[in-house]
Amino acid sequence: MGHFITFEGIEGCGKTTQIRLLAECLRSRGYRVVTTREPGGCPIADKIRSILLDAENSAMSPLAELMLYSAARAQHVSEVILPALEAGCIVLCDRFTDATIAYQSAGRGIERSTIETLNTLACSSITPELTVLLDCDVQTGLGRARARIEAAHGPREERFELESLEFHQRVRDSYLDLASRQPHRFLKICAGGSVEEVSAIITNQVCTRLADSHAIC
Amino acid sequence: MGHFITFEGIEGCGKTTQIRLLAECLRSRGYRVVTTREPGGCPIADKIRSILLDAENSAMSPLAELMLYSAARAQHVSEVILPALEAGCIVLCDRFTDATIAYQSAGRGIERSTIETLNTLACSSITPELTVLLDCDVQTGLGRARARIEAAHGPREERFELESLEFHQRVRDSYLDLASRQPHRFLKICAGGSVEEVSAIITNQVCTRLADSHAIC
Repeated sequence: MGHFITFEGIEGCGKTTQIRLLAECLRSRGYRVVTTREPGGCPIADKIRSILLDAENSAMSPLAELMLYSAARAQHVSEVILPALEAGCIVLCDRFTDATIAYQSAGRGIERSTIETLNTLACSSITPELTVLLDCDVQTGLGRARARIEAAHGPREERFELESLEFHQRVRDSYLDLASRQPHRFLKICAGGSVEEVSAIITNQVCTRLADSHAIC
Repeated sequence: MGHFITFEGIEGCGKTTQIRLLAECLRSRGYRVVTTREPGGCPIADKIRSILLDAENSAMSPLAELMLYSAARAQHVSEVILPALEAGCIVLCDRFTDATIAYQSAGRGIERSTIETLNTLACSSITPELTVLLDCDVQTGLGRARARIEAAHGPREERFELESLEFHQRVRDSYLDLASRQPHRFLKICAGGSVEEVSAIITNQVCTRLADSHAIC
């Protein structure tokens, strides 16, 4: 089996950039790396993503939203993540089950037990061995995310970026709570540093963990 | 509260026609009637329907399929069925939770307990008080359904009509089993009679039930 590493954090915290840099670094050291994201990561899950993130779907009930995320995850796990891990790859995934707890439980108010039932069903026993939490001030993150949307002139992720600051603060607090309860799995990093500084911390920590498990890197 | 009546049966059993005829009859007697269908019934659930029924999505995992049905149902219940029942309407729904048991458990092989967990979550305590099962020979039903698709030249429901006869036989058997276990809720009708004959049986039974609960009809 390979290694499953997830990246979490509020909108605009820099996950996409950091995943790209870590993937480049790991590939340069000879690892086979698969980068992917949720919701999405394969054609059927991408179609579900387009429903989830389209601001036109403002009438979506919290429960329908949760179930759509779970459907996309079930497809993504069975079609992409599990086969890549079985082939010995390192899988770097932009958001996973922690995002569902932060957004759908802390953000939307769905009972935690319901979230956990669906997460467990969708994951088919896959859990991240390391989760990089890029922690970021809510106003800074949202400002970056909105600027990115404006630049792209597209509907990407709008449904969540349009939520209130209080919603995103609950999401951030939930991530911090998750990280404090599972310090061994979570690597919490202040995303306020430069891209290079944050990348150096992540690369160092990931390579140390891989070395512990492989005696390489 | 109004009355919630569902219609079930394999592809091509005649549900759509019978729902239309019953709705016309009930409206002529002064009832307020809402006709709807699953998956779908409202804009977000219709977008989910288009993913579920598109033959292009042949790689869909059984679990992702189940969760998409559940997501569509959660949205449909909260946006359409519950408000209509609260407004005192009779809701006639083309497929509901029994279809999920027949197709996703008997058809696809997902554990019954998983189906029931998701059905319970999605339904928000709504259960049909009457379920009309139009029972039909599998070859006859599929023949009708395929002819309908050919006439429409569209992708409607193709992903299921393309399944094997054995798949649809398991679905039919599951429906018959459900009906035999809950004879008070189910009205099982042989769909082999003429449209008018079948409609007369349904109208008679539904009006008797409504009269029992209302002293009208």
